[in-house]
Amino acid sequence: MNWTVDKVLYHQKSDFQEVAILELQELGRALALDGAIQVTVKDEFVYNEMITHVPLFTHPNPEKVLIIGGGDGGAAREAAKHPKVKQVDMCEIDPVVIEACREYLPEMSVSYDNPKVNVITKDGIAFIKNNPNTYDVIIIDSSDPVGPAVELFQKQFYTDVRGALKEDGLFVCQSESLFLHMQLIKDVYASISSLFPIARVYTSTNATYPGFLWSYTMGSKRYDPLAKEELEPQTFQTKYYNHDLFKASFALPNFLKEELGQK
Amino acid sequence: MNWTVDKVLYHQKSDFQEVAILELQELGRALALDGAIQVTVKDEFVYNEMITHVPLFTHPNPEKVLIIGGGDGGAAREAAKHPKVKQVDMCEIDPVVIEACREYLPEMSVSYDNPKVNVITKDGIAFIKNNPNTYDVIIIDSSDPVGPAVELFQKQFYTDVRGALKEDGLFVCQSESLFLHMQLIKDVYASISSLFPIARVYTSTNATYPGFLWSYTMGSKRYDPLAKEELEPQTFQTKYYNHDLFKASFALPNFLKEELGQK
Repeated sequence: MNWTVDKVLYHQKSDFQEVAILELQELGRALALDGAIQVTVKDEFVYNEMITHVPLFTHPNPEKVLIIGGGDGGAAREAAKHPKVKQVDMCEIDPVVIEACREYLPEMSVSYDNPKVNVITKDGIAFIKNNPNTYDVIIIDSSDPVGPAVELFQKQFYTDVRGALKEDGLFVCQSESLFLHMQLIKDVYASISSLFPIARVYTSTNATYPGFLWSYTMGSKRYDPLAKEELEPQTFQTKYYNHDLFKASFALPNFLKEELGQK
Repeated sequence: MNWTVDKVLYHQKSDFQEVAILELQELGRALALDGAIQVTVKDEFVYNEMITHVPLFTHPNPEKVLIIGGGDGGAAREAAKHPKVKQVDMCEIDPVVIEACREYLPEMSVSYDNPKVNVITKDGIAFIKNNPNTYDVIIIDSSDPVGPAVELFQKQFYTDVRGALKEDGLFVCQSESLFLHMQLIKDVYASISSLFPIARVYTSTNATYPGFLWSYTMGSKRYDPLAKEELEPQTFQTKYYNHDLFKASFALPNFLKEELGQK
């Protein structure tokens, strides 16, 4: 995929990666890390709403939420919309990402100033180890499994995530594309299935990540999204998400179900 | 989007368009019309299964099926799988497409030799005018609304489609991308809504059409896919489609529902 870069608005090499804000002709402003587009203002809402509202509507009382990564602020913006959510800790390892998004992506970084949101610039892997039995919901909004995000796709990390969740907690991670990263999806699902009584995969489609048909994998200690009879009424606005899509997103193509041993 | 063309296997200028079979490094063999990729062997099953099985499972007794376009044979291959389907007329305007797909895309053109399938190389627009009250299900498997396919997106054509359907018939057309062609989706939906008591939009995701989140629009005289309590058991293999996805595909994002006046 190629996009036309009208302008490079920001570019800096951080301690972790190459951080850039680009003005794309087709998609508007975008955050790129090590050259890979992470979010664009045109379609960020699909991903940010789906990685956030599906787990938050699965948990009956998601008061304390942790986002690992998600430095653009989009997932935090969505999480803060939930009336039951009292605290959103956003743990982004790279302060340069925060700085760049605060200045150039206000549509997302507006959440930094939300009173519910705490922006924490620390290594998420160490952070969860130091905060056992703390969170109702954890959202792993990571970049691709290269560079600083590699460990975020490993079983040891999911074990630590389990430890940072309360006894009825659940978490979700973005787990890449059904068309391009099937082995990774299988590995993540296998790890999470071995650590949590409930493991579920759901999907949505985005316009900018290569692979398009995107997967999210949930690990849950008690609550099963497929067992939800009724969802709490949605009391806030979304551009993509609705409760019909909550249920629909768990309907998986046969080729994925076969890979996951569900068929 | 750019793909690497390893080899041009076939290239000919027909009376209607430029027809090419390409060997793509990332996606295998592909049919391109006027330079636009129509199908690739890697992901054709998503589109061909969704444009076929959703309408065929919506109709309780789809004995006679007409496919307009679909020269690659993929939709005909899927339609012929249904036990209740007795006849599939595939009306492709361009014999050069048939010739190219027969030689280079056997995965799809295998359907040409299916005893249920009649390959008709005629102008679909004239064909439906000459076959009133004939079909249970009509599938408009067209290329983009440029070149020979322009008229296939116009209200006059849908009026003729209505005439070619039996009194309880239904049809579906591919109606382009939610991310790139919203005005077209709205126009097609408005036309079909004005001609049929039941108009429904559903979606699926593909890896090769720009826009990825693809829409299909159904016009039906009697049967409503949203009202189906129970679907006939699926007695054949599919790589993408299953009945969970039938229901899920009609769950639409808020931004589309708003454009369609459904919210």
